[in-house]
Amino acid sequence: MATAAISDTLLSQLRSILPDEFTLTDDESLDHYSHDETEDLKFLPSVVVKPRTTGEVSAILKIASSENVPVTPRGAGTGLSGGCLPVHGGIVLSLERMNSILEIDKANLICVTEPGVITQVLQEAVEQAGLFYPVDPASRASCMIGGNVAENSGGPRAAKYGVTKDFVLGLTAVLPSGEIIKSGGKLFKDVTGYNLAQILVGSEGTLAVVTEIILKLLPLPKLRLMLMVPFPTLEDAARTVSLILRDGLAPSAIEFTERDAFLAAKEQLGKTVAYEQAAAQLMIELDGNEQELIDTHAERIGEIALENNALDVLLAEDKKRQDDLWAIRRSFGEAIKLRSVYKEEDTVVPRDKIPELMTRVKELCAKWNITSICYGHAGDGNIHVNLLKENLSDEVWERDLDTVIRELFTIVVELGGTLTGEHGVGYIQREYMPIVKTNAELALMKRIKDAFDPQGILNPGKIFPQGK
Amino acid sequence: MATAAISDTLLSQLRSILPDEFTLTDDESLDHYSHDETEDLKFLPSVVVKPRTTGEVSAILKIASSENVPVTPRGAGTGLSGGCLPVHGGIVLSLERMNSILEIDKANLICVTEPGVITQVLQEAVEQAGLFYPVDPASRASCMIGGNVAENSGGPRAAKYGVTKDFVLGLTAVLPSGEIIKSGGKLFKDVTGYNLAQILVGSEGTLAVVTEIILKLLPLPKLRLMLMVPFPTLEDAARTVSLILRDGLAPSAIEFTERDAFLAAKEQLGKTVAYEQAAAQLMIELDGNEQELIDTHAERIGEIALENNALDVLLAEDKKRQDDLWAIRRSFGEAIKLRSVYKEEDTVVPRDKIPELMTRVKELCAKWNITSICYGHAGDGNIHVNLLKENLSDEVWERDLDTVIRELFTIVVELGGTLTGEHGVGYIQREYMPIVKTNAELALMKRIKDAFDPQGILNPGKIFPQGK
Repeated sequence: MATAAISDTLLSQLRSILPDEFTLTDDESLDHYSHDETEDLKFLPSVVVKPRTTGEVSAILKIASSENVPVTPRGAGTGLSGGCLPVHGGIVLSLERMNSILEIDKANLICVTEPGVITQVLQEAVEQAGLFYPVDPASRASCMIGGNVAENSGGPRAAKYGVTKDFVLGLTAVLPSGEIIKSGGKLFKDVTGYNLAQILVGSEGTLAVVTEIILKLLPLPKLRLMLMVPFPTLEDAARTVSLILRDGLAPSAIEFTERDAFLAAKEQLGKTVAYEQAAAQLMIELDGNEQELIDTHAERIGEIALENNALDVLLAEDKKRQDDLWAIRRSFGEAIKLRSVYKEEDTVVPRDKIPELMTRVKELCAKWNITSICYGHAGDGNIHVNLLKENLSDEVWERDLDTVIRELFTIVVELGGTLTGEHGVGYIQREYMPIVKTNAELALMKRIKDAFDPQGILNPGKIFPQGK
Repeated sequence: MATAAISDTLLSQLRSILPDEFTLTDDESLDHYSHDETEDLKFLPSVVVKPRTTGEVSAILKIASSENVPVTPRGAGTGLSGGCLPVHGGIVLSLERMNSILEIDKANLICVTEPGVITQVLQEAVEQAGLFYPVDPASRASCMIGGNVAENSGGPRAAKYGVTKDFVLGLTAVLPSGEIIKSGGKLFKDVTGYNLAQILVGSEGTLAVVTEIILKLLPLPKLRLMLMVPFPTLEDAARTVSLILRDGLAPSAIEFTERDAFLAAKEQLGKTVAYEQAAAQLMIELDGNEQELIDTHAERIGEIALENNALDVLLAEDKKRQDDLWAIRRSFGEAIKLRSVYKEEDTVVPRDKIPELMTRVKELCAKWNITSICYGHAGDGNIHVNLLKENLSDEVWERDLDTVIRELFTIVVELGGTLTGEHGVGYIQREYMPIVKTNAELALMKRIKDAFDPQGILNPGKIFPQGK
């Protein structure tokens, strides 16, 4: 374990690389970089640095290595697992100033970008060029593409398009030693040695600091259609997801939402939908370039839904209405946070196990007398289970929560799933890793960590259970 | 470096795990497992073992570890870089008996398979279920899916569908220590720790032995159409590829072939196409479910081709004719091998650099008075450059070849490409790795190798240049 003490020598070394305005030690700045969007976490860094170039990142890491000081890379701080928090203090390395889109290469359908670009900014820029970057986390208006790479972010469209890793063709990254490496390129095939880019995607900033990203793009689909489908029970909605997928239809998103998420959005944010009292709703997006094909698929999906007790099938054809519905969908996290102390779990199971997952989550929560609100990317098997404290006493909540989470993950594993689909292990899930990973697997991951970061200075205290 | 000596003790240990018929030491067997499809390589193993289960693979590796004997995993032996050859002797571990498709999961569009299944057998089995595994190496009738994972195989359809890594959702693998690890699952999202599955794909059997593979499948496209488009010059054909891709059309394959590949197929195998004297031809495949959409795209592609001097645009609509054309395409490797001593290079560049690559390859070969035949997956930027000895003396061929290859790779790197797109580094390309990888990158890869294989017993002598 590296030490978190920051000497005056270190500080002056950092200030020889970056102007004072980008080497921050004032209380307000340290506070700002001490938390992310995860519930109830706060860890103060000793210093925050904001480099602009790969070379500056390299110089900072060389200093940190030589002084054996922890470095925690950070994007926009929208993470939900504490992945960017300096749990052992030291340096927070913010990539926010590395925010240029370097190239949108229309000939090759490729984008080259720095990590600090806001995901939505990137998406809109490539759309201007008639291209499409489909990975669409709920936080897209504020999260950064570098954070998406670190967490292998998903979002609702993974069902059809995949997750961040499926779009990363190449990376430039800086090792904790300060060495700069590249992997991949503007290439759709590359087997020259180990795929370092793919091990970096989803490594949560524990192996290297990514400073440049080469992304595959797609032609922009010209048409989109959304269906809102309310159901009288969770099971009806969950079963319908499986049947749609089994039918060979390929919606770009199938979002599952139970009533209380919509009600929270209404109560806290004033956002409403039709059929707000339905037990659950599916929000299904279709995209493509052929109106007839989209209509045929929408009709078939509607039939399947109605055969499975759907209360209605509502179409949202114009972009404004679709944007409104997505805005409601993206507000659930904030709405639930406003409603109660809570804990969000990012469960993922094989897609046909969603009905059983829903049934068993509700049984579990009934047993422990805990309110749960479930929503998420049913088309990818990825359901966010929010456990709410509400009227429980602090004592009961603190006593039971860990056990409930362990029982939840045990159910997930029995169904062939795992404990995080897109939020990452970070700080908050690390002690649950032995539920899904063997000692041999954890030890191998630790050896890989050591291969990148022999001193253990990069984002310490993440992914691995304490003592592993 | 592990030792290759095989003691009687080791042999009796192996025979305590496997019956004698699957622990082979006779000359004929050793000879059979001493080569693959790479030009002119032969390395004899001391013993060949053929386990049937993950447990047996584990037991074999435990013995090999404790005796410090090299183990080289092997699929069908169709590789083109010597990746499965026991260059330091020892044990060849053939996965050929692990040849069951374990599950075709229609509900989740997923297949679970052992590594020894022939790729074409797997493709046909999933097609029977109305599903599609698009990764389609030319050797698909004889190569194995485990070898495809080891090499991250591509084939012609990567342009639209991606390569093997894009379909691997999970793996079971055995470490050189005998420890069994799993990574991923029937899951479309998973960020619980480092993505071990993705570092194993393309690692050429140097990190672990893969014994079970979970693959994503797609709905089977109902319709296919093929266009054969002859051109008067290579440049016209190459430029047309870029223009098709830039136009936002998404063919499932764009194959580029120059005249001499067709002529070799005719002379050596009696296979002919129309316009056999055209300097180059594009073979373009479109697939989908909407005839009208396919026809529209085909028409647009035809227009672009004719605007760029295409001599004709021929349609192959029925499956029989398409299969015949693909059979001709797949025969080029064999036909060239029959024509002359040769060396095949597996260049890959950004797709819009194909015209420049073609021009510079021909200039290079003219300079060195070497005949070249180029063909390959232009839609992916992946061109196989075959350098033919033909009438050159042995002395000139042996003197110049290495220099020509180095100059070729230097061109490729200048164009933003790399030295192998899908064949792997293996044994034959390892000394060229410093052309594309820095010392820091190679050293990091070596530390990753050590994390998996601290004794260095698994497939030694591959990927890394000697002394690295």
